[in-house]
Amino acid sequence: MSTTDETRTARPAGRPRSAKAEKAIIEATLDLIGESVSLSELTIEAVAARAGVGKTTIYRRWSNKEDLVVDALATLKAPPPPLVAPTVRENLVVYLEMLERESGDVRSRCVMNIAMNEADRHPHLVARIRQAAIRPRQEALAALLRRGVESGELRADLDVPVAMAMVVGTMMWYVKSAGFGEGGEHSEDVVGRVLDHLMAGLAPR
Amino acid sequence: MSTTDETRTARPAGRPRSAKAEKAIIEATLDLIGESVSLSELTIEAVAARAGVGKTTIYRRWSNKEDLVVDALATLKAPPPPLVAPTVRENLVVYLEMLERESGDVRSRCVMNIAMNEADRHPHLVARIRQAAIRPRQEALAALLRRGVESGELRADLDVPVAMAMVVGTMMWYVKSAGFGEGGEHSEDVVGRVLDHLMAGLAPR
Repeated sequence: MSTTDETRTARPAGRPRSAKAEKAIIEATLDLIGESVSLSELTIEAVAARAGVGKTTIYRRWSNKEDLVVDALATLKAPPPPLVAPTVRENLVVYLEMLERESGDVRSRCVMNIAMNEADRHPHLVARIRQAAIRPRQEALAALLRRGVESGELRADLDVPVAMAMVVGTMMWYVKSAGFGEGGEHSEDVVGRVLDHLMAGLAPR
Repeated sequence: MSTTDETRTARPAGRPRSAKAEKAIIEATLDLIGESVSLSELTIEAVAARAGVGKTTIYRRWSNKEDLVVDALATLKAPPPPLVAPTVRENLVVYLEMLERESGDVRSRCVMNIAMNEADRHPHLVARIRQAAIRPRQEALAALLRRGVESGELRADLDVPVAMAMVVGTMMWYVKSAGFGEGGEHSEDVVGRVLDHLMAGLAPR
């Protein structure tokens, strides 16, 4: 494996080869994380082996594992979609659809799992992932909810942190528990049914 | 390490020593899981080393890793509390308080993390954990919600799987995101504020 790098770089210098290696390295990192390889288990050696490159190819681009993991996870969590529809309800549909899409994606789920579960073992790395991948969308959601309070579409005494947990937690839990086969059948128009229950609540109106 | 077992069992036979070893083994297993050691990384060797017992002491009680893990995790997830208060609202308080308590406990969270994230790698083990630790409380919550629909305390068109995701997902997400420092301050009476928003919804009444 230690000669692979030299072998593979016996080619005309230039971007295409480099970009291809970079993509393979990012993909290998995400694959390993997606297979529940923990951050401690994830080594540059393992990434190199999976990507079919030498360790020096990785170290030429990333000076350490942390930088590589942050870059890899950032490719999964796109910036939040623009929440520019006229009503809060329509924007919540956009946000819930994003959550539904991502919750169904095993690699995307890993960003959240790492952010939530590895903080004790890797506080600095987890702080960077949260800053890069999670905070922007949390801030977009908080701003949307506050706009809704101002416009009167949401209740005047809205507790924004609780409302954020309702929006994100409900959708993530729903998608996950569907895999459990618990709580009855999970049929179509998930976003519509979730939104309706979030807005109107569980009590009769 | 292989002689430890023999050394330690040089004592009069009897239950006390045995029960103590059993407790140490369960605790060691939970400690390792609580430190985000994945099921693949978790070995009988590692548990034996942490518990200060020999591997044979473990194998005398559990024939394999799966049995040990299921037993260890079952000690974390007590049966759901009896939901026998007169109103659905009061029973939901009991349920939310249990979720709040458990979400704040790192070892308890691990049961959920394993159930949700290790299914691909360890389907049989995860199925057993779900059956032993998760299904009973999910069924208790579903029954409570259905009673609420019948009594008129909950809306007649309640979507039970969505409502379950709202109850569980909101509380779990809220407790977790409090650790992120996101979404503003997280102050007292979490259960009361969550319950109020779950019942009344986000829209103005």
